[in-house]
Amino acid sequence: MEIAILLYDGVTALDAIGPYEVLSRLPEADVKFVAASPGVKFTGQGSCGLLAEHSFDDVLHPHVLVVPGGPGERSIRNDDFAMQWVKRAHDTASWTASVCTGALILGAAGILRDVPATTHWLAREELAAFGADVVDERVCVEDGIITSAGVSSGIDMALTLAGLLEGELIAQGIQLSIEYDPQPPYQAGSPDTTTPVVVELVRSNSRFTRS
Amino acid sequence: MEIAILLYDGVTALDAIGPYEVLSRLPEADVKFVAASPGVKFTGQGSCGLLAEHSFDDVLHPHVLVVPGGPGERSIRNDDFAMQWVKRAHDTASWTASVCTGALILGAAGILRDVPATTHWLAREELAAFGADVVDERVCVEDGIITSAGVSSGIDMALTLAGLLEGELIAQGIQLSIEYDPQPPYQAGSPDTTTPVVVELVRSNSRFTRS
Repeated sequence: MEIAILLYDGVTALDAIGPYEVLSRLPEADVKFVAASPGVKFTGQGSCGLLAEHSFDDVLHPHVLVVPGGPGERSIRNDDFAMQWVKRAHDTASWTASVCTGALILGAAGILRDVPATTHWLAREELAAFGADVVDERVCVEDGIITSAGVSSGIDMALTLAGLLEGELIAQGIQLSIEYDPQPPYQAGSPDTTTPVVVELVRSNSRFTRS
Repeated sequence: MEIAILLYDGVTALDAIGPYEVLSRLPEADVKFVAASPGVKFTGQGSCGLLAEHSFDDVLHPHVLVVPGGPGERSIRNDDFAMQWVKRAHDTASWTASVCTGALILGAAGILRDVPATTHWLAREELAAFGADVVDERVCVEDGIITSAGVSSGIDMALTLAGLLEGELIAQGIQLSIEYDPQPPYQAGSPDTTTPVVVELVRSNSRFTRS
């Protein structure tokens, strides 16, 4: 089962690696990191390099397409070559998935028009501008398209997708193998559960907003 | 603030990238991926390459040392050069952290003797053999050493460490920026909360146990 994860300079590392860690454990999974030109792509913060071993031409019809977000997603939206690959891969994929602002790439590709979808809490208005029916959910499944909220939500998304692809038992085995029994030290993971001070800190600080 | 994350062939990607995603957002963070020889290191599953830009000699005295786990950790334990770097970096670091079977590397370095520590649920007996006082906790903080359970626990560990390093408000801001409001689709993240069938599936399947 070929699973393509899009990479680009300015991708957010956890957006890509959360789903990788889950989906690569599926039986018969063949996960390929794909970019316009193969090579190491650097994250927004700059110090993390992820290798894209495959070009777009190498992976034309993945079974699953995963589009992570990150501050570099704008350059993908403005890149006809990349957008054409995303559209074509989506056309034949059984599942198209996004994490965080990866949903904006799907939106710009016209894939989310009138489709229920989610993204990072700071990007929801922008996603609505692409005609998506934006929902306040962590993971949103709709007719072969699965979108998820900010950065870390890709783990929840990928476990949900693992269950849809291979059944609940396999997905639960993957969850146990990565010991995904989250115990966040704070109640600050969503603007609805944290304090206004924390929300304002994140809104006003580019170190945080460049998710 | 120099933060060194050890990489090696056979590292588990999320063990390294969970902490990276959190700690790289700390003010003044300077995260460096370090290996015996710089270059791309491949994960256990083989299809994910993470770039180590720095050699051991480049990063002798990090403020924080992060040691991820993965099936390749045994080769690190058997590598005198790597173990010497781990010991020396730990000697001057303010914090030494491990994720998953990264704790076995710290154990082999003699760093965890009589120290409360945790690791992946499948590796706890092995950790005890190094003289660690193994605890059944997701994150264990003890005198400049912070260890965490399997794979995904590195996110909880790094948020805890972020709070210790820069205070609660910054740590909460990071948590909100990565929208870490986990909603696992199953109750299967720990051997205590899932069914015996799932535990047996993971114990008997190398795709799962090579965490």
